[in-house]
Amino acid sequence: MTKLKWGMIGGGEGSQIGPAHRLGAQVDGLFEMVAGALDHRPDVGRDYARRLGIAPDRAYGDWREMLEGERARDDRIDLVTIATPNSTHFELTKAFLLAGFNVLCEKPMTMSVQEGEEIVRIAKDSGKVCAVNYCYSAYPMVRQARAMVRAGEIGKVRLVVSEFSHGHHGDAADADNPRVRWRYDPATAGVSGQFADCGIHALHLASFICDDQVGELSADFVSTIAGRALEDDAMVNFRMSKGAAGRLWTSSVAIGRQHGFEIQVFGETGGLRWASEHPNQLIHTPLHGRTQIIEKGESGLYEDASRLTRVAIAHPEGFLLAVANIYVDIADIINGNPRDGLPNATDGLRSVAAVHAAVASAADNGAWKDARPPMFR
Amino acid sequence: MTKLKWGMIGGGEGSQIGPAHRLGAQVDGLFEMVAGALDHRPDVGRDYARRLGIAPDRAYGDWREMLEGERARDDRIDLVTIATPNSTHFELTKAFLLAGFNVLCEKPMTMSVQEGEEIVRIAKDSGKVCAVNYCYSAYPMVRQARAMVRAGEIGKVRLVVSEFSHGHHGDAADADNPRVRWRYDPATAGVSGQFADCGIHALHLASFICDDQVGELSADFVSTIAGRALEDDAMVNFRMSKGAAGRLWTSSVAIGRQHGFEIQVFGETGGLRWASEHPNQLIHTPLHGRTQIIEKGESGLYEDASRLTRVAIAHPEGFLLAVANIYVDIADIINGNPRDGLPNATDGLRSVAAVHAAVASAADNGAWKDARPPMFR
Amino acid sequence: MTKLKWGMIGGGEGSQIGPAHRLGAQVDGLFEMVAGALDHRPDVGRDYARRLGIAPDRAYGDWREMLEGERARDDRIDLVTIATPNSTHFELTKAFLLAGFNVLCEKPMTMSVQEGEEIVRIAKDSGKVCAVNYCYSAYPMVRQARAMVRAGEIGKVRLVVSEFSHGHHGDAADADNPRVRWRYDPATAGVSGQFADCGIHALHLASFICDDQVGELSADFVSTIAGRALEDDAMVNFRMSKGAAGRLWTSSVAIGRQHGFEIQVFGETGGLRWASEHPNQLIHTPLHGRTQIIEKGESGLYEDASRLTRVAIAHPEGFLLAVANIYVDIADIINGNPRDGLPNATDGLRSVAAVHAAVASAADNGAWKDARPPMFR
Amino acid sequence: MTKLKWGMIGGGEGSQIGPAHRLGAQVDGLFEMVAGALDHRPDVGRDYARRLGIAPDRAYGDWREMLEGERARDDRIDLVTIATPNSTHFELTKAFLLAGFNVLCEKPMTMSVQEGEEIVRIAKDSGKVCAVNYCYSAYPMVRQARAMVRAGEIGKVRLVVSEFSHGHHGDAADADNPRVRWRYDPATAGVSGQFADCGIHALHLASFICDDQVGELSADFVSTIAGRALEDDAMVNFRMSKGAAGRLWTSSVAIGRQHGFEIQVFGETGGLRWASEHPNQLIHTPLHGRTQIIEKGESGLYEDASRLTRVAIAHPEGFLLAVANIYVDIADIINGNPRDGLPNATDGLRSVAAVHAAVASAADNGAWKDARPPMFR
Repeated sequence: MTKLKWGMIGGGEGSQIGPAHRLGAQVDGLFEMVAGALDHRPDVGRDYARRLGIAPDRAYGDWREMLEGERARDDRIDLVTIATPNSTHFELTKAFLLAGFNVLCEKPMTMSVQEGEEIVRIAKDSGKVCAVNYCYSAYPMVRQARAMVRAGEIGKVRLVVSEFSHGHHGDAADADNPRVRWRYDPATAGVSGQFADCGIHALHLASFICDDQVGELSADFVSTIAGRALEDDAMVNFRMSKGAAGRLWTSSVAIGRQHGFEIQVFGETGGLRWASEHPNQLIHTPLHGRTQIIEKGESGLYEDASRLTRVAIAHPEGFLLAVANIYVDIADIINGNPRDGLPNATDGLRSVAAVHAAVASAADNGAWKDARPPMFR
Repeated sequence: MTKLKWGMIGGGEGSQIGPAHRLGAQVDGLFEMVAGALDHRPDVGRDYARRLGIAPDRAYGDWREMLEGERARDDRIDLVTIATPNSTHFELTKAFLLAGFNVLCEKPMTMSVQEGEEIVRIAKDSGKVCAVNYCYSAYPMVRQARAMVRAGEIGKVRLVVSEFSHGHHGDAADADNPRVRWRYDPATAGVSGQFADCGIHALHLASFICDDQVGELSADFVSTIAGRALEDDAMVNFRMSKGAAGRLWTSSVAIGRQHGFEIQVFGETGGLRWASEHPNQLIHTPLHGRTQIIEKGESGLYEDASRLTRVAIAHPEGFLLAVANIYVDIADIINGNPRDGLPNATDGLRSVAAVHAAVASAADNGAWKDARPPMFR
Repeated sequence: MTKLKWGMIGGGEGSQIGPAHRLGAQVDGLFEMVAGALDHRPDVGRDYARRLGIAPDRAYGDWREMLEGERARDDRIDLVTIATPNSTHFELTKAFLLAGFNVLCEKPMTMSVQEGEEIVRIAKDSGKVCAVNYCYSAYPMVRQARAMVRAGEIGKVRLVVSEFSHGHHGDAADADNPRVRWRYDPATAGVSGQFADCGIHALHLASFICDDQVGELSADFVSTIAGRALEDDAMVNFRMSKGAAGRLWTSSVAIGRQHGFEIQVFGETGGLRWASEHPNQLIHTPLHGRTQIIEKGESGLYEDASRLTRVAIAHPEGFLLAVANIYVDIADIINGNPRDGLPNATDGLRSVAAVHAAVASAADNGAWKDARPPMFR
Repeated sequence: MTKLKWGMIGGGEGSQIGPAHRLGAQVDGLFEMVAGALDHRPDVGRDYARRLGIAPDRAYGDWREMLEGERARDDRIDLVTIATPNSTHFELTKAFLLAGFNVLCEKPMTMSVQEGEEIVRIAKDSGKVCAVNYCYSAYPMVRQARAMVRAGEIGKVRLVVSEFSHGHHGDAADADNPRVRWRYDPATAGVSGQFADCGIHALHLASFICDDQVGELSADFVSTIAGRALEDDAMVNFRMSKGAAGRLWTSSVAIGRQHGFEIQVFGETGGLRWASEHPNQLIHTPLHGRTQIIEKGESGLYEDASRLTRVAIAHPEGFLLAVANIYVDIADIINGNPRDGLPNATDGLRSVAAVHAAVASAADNGAWKDARPPMFR
């Protein structure tokens, strides 16, 4: 099998997300990294790209150079990953889609709903992959959960409770720490702090597992540390289009919670629970039955869970392999095998719309707001 | 030490709460059961009381008979426990307080805020104990948590997250099950279902551990099962008087959660977590420190935690001993040792006021309401 | 129902075991404490007994006085609990049995195998209850485990793994601490330290749940702290009479383990796991099936588990109620309801024989020894 | 940085171990797979190698062809991984070392102690890397544990308790399942079943974390399923050269345990616990202190733990990244950075010697045997 050709924009030396994508793309031998514009400083980016083994003529100084360079080649990249600062995602995603490239964009896909709708239209017209890296949805046991819900194993969903609450921004003394401060400053983070950063993963996962979409929502935002213009703690109540109620709590001041991403789904005939810190187990309780532990790699899992598992039961698989699973699905689609679990432009848009709806609700004392993008109302 | 004399109203044969009180009152040898009006059917109650070893002349047919009988005796009971249906709590508590008895009332103390304020005034005037059985607050490790907060071990509290969500009313087929149905019928349950039943424990515990009171709140109520007039799932956001934010989730349709009572408290310099299903451990994370497990019975606990422990570290102590601890505190107070942890009429009133505020908020699309009783505004 | 009359020898003020028995006997209202010789200092014991509400004429100065006193009464005690130092258990148990009293003896029942056999014969001839307080066997979920094994739910047992390892004697500086030192001194503890203290509970529970008896064993004893003549860590391999293999680890220097009592039973078609620190759950895995959590108080438990439960599912019940369950079974037997789960003189004898066999094996480099009492070979 | 050139022998299509090595070697971009003799059927192996992107002239038919082919090249591989059947490890490792290649061999390194000593001598003379894939030792939190022990954080080690017990061979009906049967047949598995398969990992990890070596041991082997010539359950007691005692339990019939690899280390001033199923946490209890959770990725870890971590705290990292860490250490050594944690030929030899000593002990009723290889006595 020939490897697909892959390039990345952003994700330079010292970033968290760059290595995650490089490992994720390459661990299964599906993609080969052949191009990159890895740093906002052209020389730094070119040098780093070369050290990563990229040929000099594909070690680009910026994204425009890369777009032109790749467009001109016969052996152009099959996929570009966009891992640049949030405010640039729209422009880059749009440009590469319009030029006919498959795109994997870091979240948020865009800063505004209008931009998000534009990407959805462009992606549709292009016929190309436009994926957004909601990578928690690619854990095998999350796929198992969604498959169980779809198969009716817990009946119609009544309620979903999703949390993504950690405590790593709980130190008031971090007011001068640039790695924390930017997150609560509208100039750098946009309209929302913790909800846009982590809460949106929790909301996407709720929609993903329930196989449903958020309709209305009501939000309560709090800044628990003086000087933060944006929220560091948020509670969002919501309703899904098929009728389920939702509760979503996200916090960055929950000291003692490390990752703190957990989801519970309750239906007419059962409940499910999954936590990202111990991702290889899914907890299932049938109505009137005993709570059971479903293990990654056990026999009899749904196909979408078993195909995304690499090692035997009880050998843990972690975060990087979830990112890798995003690339597995993209490779499958590029190679002609449709995969419906991959988070796409529509998911990216819905997430952006939910952030804006939550911000509006929080500013309006929790009044209920329509979280749907206008194009889907 | 002479045992105190104790009687109970309600809690008849087959009830859950009756045995809990009998064991709780008597396990430590502090109280002796000498009187009772245990059933709404006089003969049944008298017979059961006699079988429990109560003398025939103190095996009463109803509460009025018991009130008169005990009032007339020199060796009158030192404490009466009221474990009758909710709607009768006000009348009985009032009558026994006015007659000069110490009272332990099951929650809710009253059905209306007005009644609650009346009890607070009567209790104050009487100089008698008027306790309400928010017994989770009497677990040793809950006392430890409160003592740690008071001592500043986690700094000023920013956020409290309290959950009491189980799944035991998750079967829609229980529509005809009288033990479930009454809880969601305003005729029997009053203005609120799950929030008044379980949520209020979670709210009391939040106030108790934070040593603070709820100010405003906003509620989202849901009935997930057709035919339920009252909520079976509720989310309540609140603010405490010292500034902390609160999130409270309560549900009776969370299939797979058995008891589901957990509380997390986050302050400026640390976090705490406690769960009623494993009540002998308290989890503590100092800011920038490692998560630690505090064990019931370990050396160096606060006095309020260590004095309420009966057996050595790691020998688990459970629910009935928490109820017993309520009696320990009452006995101490009767014997002249003030105990400030005992839930009293003011706690009972605040809880009733919070229920009414939440109901009003939920009916008003989550608009924020003042949860304080008028007399404390 | 008339309460049974109960007395205790030993368990004086400040002891751990005294309160456990008083609470255990009285919590359910089955026994009333009417007699006691609670301290080796006659005056201290009499005074304490009176303060506990015992009538002066039954507040005895020593066990002989109590034996004579009670024997002479028409309303003699129905049960005596022996909670004196280990070396006295044989003499007291023998004397009270011969005088026609029901006895509950703390473990070890005797110091020698010969004494143990004598008690078994006397108990049999007497027709009285002779129970030994292996109280872990009275937890509801332990009873559930045994009932499942008996019913064949995990098939023929192949292997049992039992651990009782804590770290509370892990400080070498405790060499001068009398509460620790005596345990490792043959003059006070007898032939074995940690194995006789805790390991024997683990061995009894293995036999109890498997409904089987130990045949041969091989032991490895270690004293990890200089100056300890007796072992503070032991590993015992054994074979049961029905063919199962056993592994038993016990330690008092396992720093970080608090109680550390866990048991796993593996059969042809499933496995079970139970831990005393979280006693309300029993973990069950059927062959080729998912691991399930069985909850105390759930519907459908075996009768021996459900009858020993006092409060609803997920309300934890702890150690003192396990002790209480020993008294429940004794009361039932006294009242004419046979109970086969109660640990009796035969269990006490088998435990003593196993200790001696383990000591002999450890002294002989782990050579296999017959652990059966001579009378059962 | 130029990638190192890597080849593998064995690990063909459908094997578990092949993908683990391919991902492990390549995930960090340190090695490039350029050669392979992947199957015992030459054509199948060549074809699979080509499909993995290996050039046709380096897609070899068998290991001899590969040895000759690579030896003749200027761009010969920097490392060969040997993932063939156990009985061939000795011959291949010897041949490649003598030819001047660095070798990573799957365990067991050899079948006999004599062969093991020969490899140790050859490896030493060659000056090449001879690593053995005891990959659990490469988890970051295992490295943290060893560094803590070395730094004296738990004082002198008194006791180590290591378990590797699963239940995946617990079905007696697997007697005809070739994937299970071979493990208990001396013709295919050699002298030991479960102990050689899994127990040896537990023993290596005990030595690794304690930074010590096994001296004497005593073993109890059991075959719980009829027809198994080799043990499916084993208990091994041992003594380490610095004086610590050890207990090791391994089983393949422990139904309900999935991976079941856990290790506890107890020293004079603290205890440690680690489990491979939740590998990102290390549990630490200081003497007289509270149990603490050490998280992978937290600040302040020892260098050997932090350098082997790829993503932030609480993003789980799993088994494949532990395998990858073996390759990280090998690459470092090849590149001139000494790494003392890598399991080497001496570790491989000690493991083989321990297996033979345990087999001899078990056959001799648990008599204590010297587990040290003759060359190290």
